[in-house]
Amino acid sequence: WAARQQTNTTATLAHCERWMDRLGWLANFDRVADGATGPGRPGWQFSDSEVYKLMEALAWDYGRTGDPGTDRTLRALTARIARAQDDDGYLNTYFGHAGQRGRYVDLEMGHELYCVGHLLQAAVARLRTTGADALVDVARRTADQVCREFGPGRREAICGHPEIELGLAELGRALAEPRYTEQARLFVERRGRGLLRPIPLLSPSYFQDDVPVRDAAVLRGHAVRALYLSAAAVDVAVDTGDDDLLASLERQWTATVSRRTYLTGGMGSRHQDEGFGEDWELPPDRAYCETCAGIASVMVSWRLFLATGDVRYADLMERTFYNVIATSPGPDGRAFFYANPLQQRTPGEPTSPDAVNLRAEGAARAPWFDVSCCPTNVARTLATWQTYTATVGDDGAVSLLQYASGSLRLTLPDGAALGLEVETDYPASGRVVVRVVTAPDSPVLLRFRIPSWATGAVLHEDGRRIEAPPGFADVHRTFAAGERLELDLPVAPRFSTPDRRIDAVRGCVAVERGPVVLCLESADLDDAGPLDDLRVDPTRPPTDAEPGAFVQVRRADRPEDAGEGLPYRDVPPGLDAASSADDAPPLAVRLVPYHSWAQRGPSTMRVFLPTT
Amino acid sequence: WAARQQTNTTATLAHCERWMDRLGWLANFDRVADGATGPGRPGWQFSDSEVYKLMEALAWDYGRTGDPGTDRTLRALTARIARAQDDDGYLNTYFGHAGQRGRYVDLEMGHELYCVGHLLQAAVARLRTTGADALVDVARRTADQVCREFGPGRREAICGHPEIELGLAELGRALAEPRYTEQARLFVERRGRGLLRPIPLLSPSYFQDDVPVRDAAVLRGHAVRALYLSAAAVDVAVDTGDDDLLASLERQWTATVSRRTYLTGGMGSRHQDEGFGEDWELPPDRAYCETCAGIASVMVSWRLFLATGDVRYADLMERTFYNVIATSPGPDGRAFFYANPLQQRTPGEPTSPDAVNLRAEGAARAPWFDVSCCPTNVARTLATWQTYTATVGDDGAVSLLQYASGSLRLTLPDGAALGLEVETDYPASGRVVVRVVTAPDSPVLLRFRIPSWATGAVLHEDGRRIEAPPGFADVHRTFAAGERLELDLPVAPRFSTPDRRIDAVRGCVAVERGPVVLCLESADLDDAGPLDDLRVDPTRPPTDAEPGAFVQVRRADRPEDAGEGLPYRDVPPGLDAASSADDAPPLAVRLVPYHSWAQRGPSTMRVFLPTT
Repeated sequence: WAARQQTNTTATLAHCERWMDRLGWLANFDRVADGATGPGRPGWQFSDSEVYKLMEALAWDYGRTGDPGTDRTLRALTARIARAQDDDGYLNTYFGHAGQRGRYVDLEMGHELYCVGHLLQAAVARLRTTGADALVDVARRTADQVCREFGPGRREAICGHPEIELGLAELGRALAEPRYTEQARLFVERRGRGLLRPIPLLSPSYFQDDVPVRDAAVLRGHAVRALYLSAAAVDVAVDTGDDDLLASLERQWTATVSRRTYLTGGMGSRHQDEGFGEDWELPPDRAYCETCAGIASVMVSWRLFLATGDVRYADLMERTFYNVIATSPGPDGRAFFYANPLQQRTPGEPTSPDAVNLRAEGAARAPWFDVSCCPTNVARTLATWQTYTATVGDDGAVSLLQYASGSLRLTLPDGAALGLEVETDYPASGRVVVRVVTAPDSPVLLRFRIPSWATGAVLHEDGRRIEAPPGFADVHRTFAAGERLELDLPVAPRFSTPDRRIDAVRGCVAVERGPVVLCLESADLDDAGPLDDLRVDPTRPPTDAEPGAFVQVRRADRPEDAGEGLPYRDVPPGLDAASSADDAPPLAVRLVPYHSWAQRGPSTMRVFLPTT
Repeated sequence: WAARQQTNTTATLAHCERWMDRLGWLANFDRVADGATGPGRPGWQFSDSEVYKLMEALAWDYGRTGDPGTDRTLRALTARIARAQDDDGYLNTYFGHAGQRGRYVDLEMGHELYCVGHLLQAAVARLRTTGADALVDVARRTADQVCREFGPGRREAICGHPEIELGLAELGRALAEPRYTEQARLFVERRGRGLLRPIPLLSPSYFQDDVPVRDAAVLRGHAVRALYLSAAAVDVAVDTGDDDLLASLERQWTATVSRRTYLTGGMGSRHQDEGFGEDWELPPDRAYCETCAGIASVMVSWRLFLATGDVRYADLMERTFYNVIATSPGPDGRAFFYANPLQQRTPGEPTSPDAVNLRAEGAARAPWFDVSCCPTNVARTLATWQTYTATVGDDGAVSLLQYASGSLRLTLPDGAALGLEVETDYPASGRVVVRVVTAPDSPVLLRFRIPSWATGAVLHEDGRRIEAPPGFADVHRTFAAGERLELDLPVAPRFSTPDRRIDAVRGCVAVERGPVVLCLESADLDDAGPLDDLRVDPTRPPTDAEPGAFVQVRRADRPEDAGEGLPYRDVPPGLDAASSADDAPPLAVRLVPYHSWAQRGPSTMRVFLPTT
């Protein structure tokens, strides 16, 4: 992840700024400031939010690197947007100025409050890293305008795309400003009561306006909307001590993860409305699994972990980091997947590094999109990856959640310092070495997360060998500087079998290696024939080939091409050609990490491999 | 089909008129006539086309029944639309009048020419049944306006939704007016050359504007658009003697049917953009299979059959009649399926007979839709069903294509009359009795279509028993009035196994009975437990239970609910719980015709049944 963060710093941030400059999304702020608004404004109504997400990424990244250039870029952008702010705090380049529609006339699709939410999150990033500055001032004035317009007793409305709730909740916390927290609570509570007008061809569930948040049973509708709302609702539940709401959100997470989530952690089964499907509707080929939904899922799980300490939330975060978020950006940090399907039947067209991609299809990474939410979302997430590695609980428990080499300098609740050096090439191997650098002379509870897949993990500490089942492996004692603990996680490749109710991958297996989902890519099939014709021999376990694996496959005799007829044959099942040729020796083919697919030119790909 | 036609006549036609009256789609014509256009026009920009499709249905139905009430209704509607026609022939209630956008400013999405196409088809129905009248006059003036605007050397443009091509080709033929045929040809030839402007989030293939029609390899993009275009192109190819174009369209049909078509004959795998999927992308649950696409598929196959005499086109028509078109309308002819999925995981909400359905989901039939193309399309198709039953070739060959009881009075090319009485309860049984009522005293080639699934069909004629393989069973001799021929088609239920490349139904079988695709509906599962838990024993063939079948199933032990985890388990494939319990005796469950599903209240349903 350090390399990914480095690429983010050195390539992605500037890439995003360049594209938004080129497309005029930045200049939209200048036009408002200069009173030059009118027809022909470039970009969708939500393009301001991309600028704010870049600013958030810059703020976090400056906090991580201290690079003065990053700070300069952020300050310049801040000055530019500040000029576009109206006297009363309203800030939007699409509505509310000469030649534009009025403020808040289209809450369903206008995304004004959504944009504000991202502005507030950018300010929170600044507050958490540098402290109050001009960006925080702009955000505060905008938030105040929102509270005046939509506060208690004022206009009872919500935004079609949740996000303002997150921004207000975070800013309320960061500034200890209860008005913002209360406004976030109001927006969350108002939802699901039909305040949004009907939109042709969209159902209220698209906006999560069908059921009040606390009454919902599962996430549904537009995936990013549902997840942003859920994340904000956790913040509200925690900040207002609303245990019922928190319990409901936990139940919704459980229902969603157990029946509406891909092996990769991806969420959102449908291209149609970018939405969740029904339970068990998890097609690999048309998996939308929007990158932003993966990011939003991490936001929800992180908040639920912080609120409950339940390890399963950190488990899903790891799965999503390695298999959704790591999949989106290409190695150069200048091209991205928007959708993350688990099967590609036809090789994707190569994308031009110089052209906006009009559709969020999943066959090749693209430099920018017509709706380009994902690149800046990846940027702000990678800029904060290290913050998810460990936590210190109110009770002083130190939890190691994500394993990567680095230094952890933690302050315990009593003010004592705990310094740890982590050394690992995880997930290439499963060995994680933790050296204690500084430690208090009183007992500390040190918890190692053992992922749910890690059957047979072993912790070596203080001369002992401790079998560590999935969950947390706890060591509670006084640590001495210089001592060494070692965790061995079994990352050997393994088959994963889907629940039989996932119809779309019946008769298939996937292979995972540690936290990494693998895939078979046509680039690795030189002599083995077309990907579609292969079937895995499930009696032969996969063998390790770090970072991937080998599996044994056979060619399925391809039936006579259906030719003129339909592709359904009147033959007894089980007697079709696919079952023959079992006496031919199997062939070993290489699987590679799913997150690295489509880096070797157009290819076809499968995560789930047929066994028949 | 007689009963279905009767319901169409007595219920559906009035149902459609009532809804369009209620929603103001009819009054839109009055507003144009009265110069009262302006904001707030009800209905989508293409709502005029629904009126025209109803008029076409009325014209065909009047031709079939001679019911004077039907004629009165059609004349009244004709008078109403005639009043709205501009002096120069232009006729549209959404564009071109006071308070509206100008003519032809939005060819991509405006549907003006699409609406004209349907008007012309209505006029053709009138011409083919009654002869020229006011409706034909209106149509002719509209067609002339289109030719003036878009003719040779004029504006080089096309409509975003193909249909004008069909209307012009048919009207050109019916009136022997080469200008219309030429204009149809022009529109077909112009397509695929990027004449449509880019539309956000839609690719040119959505409009079939990506590749010239004759250069395309397969149908793609919006299914109804692709199929209407293909049907029109066959007309153009035939009328202009363009054999290359015809051959290309045959190849496209073959590629589409062999890799992009459902067992039901349904086309269009995606809700997203109502489009064709890629090869082998045929999910049962998210099958869109729009009713209108089934209708359009019949239009294409019918034209290709007429052009080539190839039996496979008539085979697909039968499949589509019984499993798509018959599925859409409910028994009362006042509720319709828009989408026709092959799997329903959750029981649909009951629909209100009094409410417009906002979404084209497939869980329950609805009386009307926000975009309501299907009901009137069903009406016009059912009104003509009898016309697809038999053909007389230029060579005098008489082909019996679709089997139903009725009288066929055919005129042979030499003017001689052939009268046949068909008696059958097909597809309940496979016995079709044909009695010769009148016959010339010279030899006639009488051809019986033997469907592709009918292995073992037998024709009894003239004291002989003839084994009749799929294709045509020909009898070429002089027939005598009073004689009797009998065809026995084997309609016993049979398993159908999908090509293994259709990933979405791997490990499943379907059951068909004659031309009818069957399904398992939860309403038939009293004691057998949830539909999801059943698996069919493929070693026990289905047994007949007309109109359906019985299959033997076992309950798959449901694994522990994944609960807090993901629905993927680290167990060796094949050793999961689904494979156990094979020693329990199987249970017989009833399958019913797919076209009759969802008539017994909300239910879950599957066409493809797991075997594992």
